[in-house]
Amino acid sequence: MMYDVIGIENPLIDLMAQVPEQFLRQWKLEKNRMMLIDQARHGELLQALDGVPIHAEPGGSCANTILGVAQLGGRTAYCGKVGGDEYGRVYMDKLKQAGVASFVRAGDKLTGSTVILVTPDAQRTMNTFLGACQELSASDIPLDALKQSRRLYITGYLWDTDGQKEAALLALRTAKAEGISVAMSLSDPFCVNRHRGDFENILKTYADLVFANREEALAQTGTDSTHEALRVLRGWCQRVVITLGGSGAIIADGDQTCFVDPNSVPAVDTTGAGDAFAAGFLYGLATDAGLYQCGRLGNYFASRVIQQMGPRLSGDVRALLAPMLSDPRK
Amino acid sequence: MMYDVIGIENPLIDLMAQVPEQFLRQWKLEKNRMMLIDQARHGELLQALDGVPIHAEPGGSCANTILGVAQLGGRTAYCGKVGGDEYGRVYMDKLKQAGVASFVRAGDKLTGSTVILVTPDAQRTMNTFLGACQELSASDIPLDALKQSRRLYITGYLWDTDGQKEAALLALRTAKAEGISVAMSLSDPFCVNRHRGDFENILKTYADLVFANREEALAQTGTDSTHEALRVLRGWCQRVVITLGGSGAIIADGDQTCFVDPNSVPAVDTTGAGDAFAAGFLYGLATDAGLYQCGRLGNYFASRVIQQMGPRLSGDVRALLAPMLSDPRK
Repeated sequence: MMYDVIGIENPLIDLMAQVPEQFLRQWKLEKNRMMLIDQARHGELLQALDGVPIHAEPGGSCANTILGVAQLGGRTAYCGKVGGDEYGRVYMDKLKQAGVASFVRAGDKLTGSTVILVTPDAQRTMNTFLGACQELSASDIPLDALKQSRRLYITGYLWDTDGQKEAALLALRTAKAEGISVAMSLSDPFCVNRHRGDFENILKTYADLVFANREEALAQTGTDSTHEALRVLRGWCQRVVITLGGSGAIIADGDQTCFVDPNSVPAVDTTGAGDAFAAGFLYGLATDAGLYQCGRLGNYFASRVIQQMGPRLSGDVRALLAPMLSDPRK
Repeated sequence: MMYDVIGIENPLIDLMAQVPEQFLRQWKLEKNRMMLIDQARHGELLQALDGVPIHAEPGGSCANTILGVAQLGGRTAYCGKVGGDEYGRVYMDKLKQAGVASFVRAGDKLTGSTVILVTPDAQRTMNTFLGACQELSASDIPLDALKQSRRLYITGYLWDTDGQKEAALLALRTAKAEGISVAMSLSDPFCVNRHRGDFENILKTYADLVFANREEALAQTGTDSTHEALRVLRGWCQRVVITLGGSGAIIADGDQTCFVDPNSVPAVDTTGAGDAFAAGFLYGLATDAGLYQCGRLGNYFASRVIQQMGPRLSGDVRALLAPMLSDPRK
C-alpha cells in the first residue's frame, strides 16, 4: 500500500487577517462563529481587508487532519477541488511541500476559502466561501490512489451538493469493494442535523470507524446521553470514537470500551481540535497502535494544537510528539 | 432481608460555625483542607468559638452516604462508635429520626467531630478529631443486622487503629460467609497511600464493588491513567466505579464499561460529592437498577449536593429526585 490514509473533502484556503473589534461590528459579524458566505460577500470582505497583511494557508477540516497525519510521519493523499486561480496553485503547492500526495484538481469557480478575522482578544471569526469545493464530482476521485490506500477518511462536510455526494459514494463503494477501511467524521452538529439519514446509512454500510464529538453523537442518534449515543453508534459501526471536549474521549471497539483521560492544558484557540484529534488517531492506526494508544495520540496532538493560534502545529511536530510516539505502552 | 445496605465507619458530628478570615490566620489553618487534630486542639478550637452559633449534624463520609440512601427511600443501618456525651446522644437521635437503624454504640472517649469553619467566601476548612471513632472494635459489629443486609458498605477511613481494622475484617468475613455483597470506597488519596496493600487485599478478597475518584484510583493502582487504573481494578473486583469530578463517571462490570455524563451545575460547595454519588448509586442497586442507571442516580444526587452548602440535602429529597427515580430507562 502506498498511503496510510487518503482524505477527500473541501480544500479551503485559510486567509487570516488581524482586524480591530470595529471591523466585526461594521460587517455585522458574530464573533467566534463560522458562517457560510457567497462569492459576492467574500469579495467584499477581501476588498475591505485591502492593505491588511493576509496570511494564506491550506485549510479545511479534512485537510487539517491529513496534513497532521503527514506531519506525524504518516503517508497521506488528499483529494478535492480548488479553482484555477492563484490560491488554488498555492493550495496544491503547500500540500506537496508538506509531503501529502495531492490529487487536488482545479475547477472553474474560485478556490474556496475561509476568511478568518482575528480580533485583539485572540478570538477567530470565520467566513467560509465554498467556491470550487462544491464542484467536486465522481470523475475527480483518484481511484488508483484510493486502491493504494489502507484507509479512506471522509467527513460530513462533503454532503453539500449532489456532485460531492456522488464523489463520496463512489469513493465509499470502491473502498468497500477493495476491502479498504473507512473512517468518517460527523463534522459538526448542524451538518449532522441536515444529513442524519444519509450519515446513518454511510456508517452502517461503509464505515468501520466514526469520529464524533459529544454534540455530534447526540445529534446523530437523537439521544441525550453519551451512553445511549454510544450504544446506538456501536450498533452501526465497529469502532466509535466520541470526544468529550476538555474531558477526554471514549473509544468503543465492538463490545470493548475504553476511556482516554484529557490532557488538561490552557486553551488559546480550540479551532481544529477535532481535526487534530483525528490526525493523531489516524496516525496511531497507521502504526498499528491499539485503539487506546490511538486515542492518547489524538488527545495529545489536539492538546498541542489548542495551545496556539490556528488549526495546525508548525515546526518539528514529530519532535514535539516524541514522548508520545516512543511510549513503550504503545 | 431487613436492610438494603449497612454502613460501618466513623460517626463524626459536624460542628459548623461561620468565622471571619482572620480566625483561620489566627489558628494557622489552611483554607479548604481537612486536617486531623487531637483532643487538646479540638477543645481549644471549640473554646475559641465560644459565643459563635454552632450547628451540629451527624456526619462522617459513610454516614453521609447511608443517610443519603435513607433519604432516597432505601432501608439502611449504620454502625460506629460515639462517646457517652451529649454529641453522641444527638448523633444517635438524628440517625434514628432519619430512619436509619442505628447500631451506634457509646464508648469512653469524646464523640468524634469535625469542626467545620465556614469563611465569608463560602469555603470550608475542616478539623477532624476522631475521638471515640477509634474505639470501634470487633465486638461492636452487629452481626445479626449485618446478616439481615443485602450489602455491606465500608470505607478506607476505617483503616486507622487495629481495633477498627479487626472490626472491619470481622464484618467482611461475615459478609463473605453469608454471601452478602460488599462495596468499598477508597475514601481519599492520602488514605490510599497509607493502606494500599490492605485495600488491595480487601478488594481482591471481599469486595464486589469499589468506589474511587480518579485520584484515589491512580494512587491505589500506582498508575497515571484512568484507563490503566480501571484495567487493574477490574482484575480485582467485579464492579468498578471511577468518578471524574466534573467530567462524569466510568463504570465497569466485568468486561463491560460504560460512561455516565456529568450533570454540569455550578458548584457552591463540593464537600460530600463522593459520599452523595455513592448514596445515589447504592440506592440504585437497592432498587435493582442497572449499573448505568445507578451511575446516573449517583451523579444526579451529587450534582444536587454540590449546589448547596454542606454534604447533605435537606427537605423532601425524594421529590427533588423524582424525575430521576421515575425515569423509564431505569
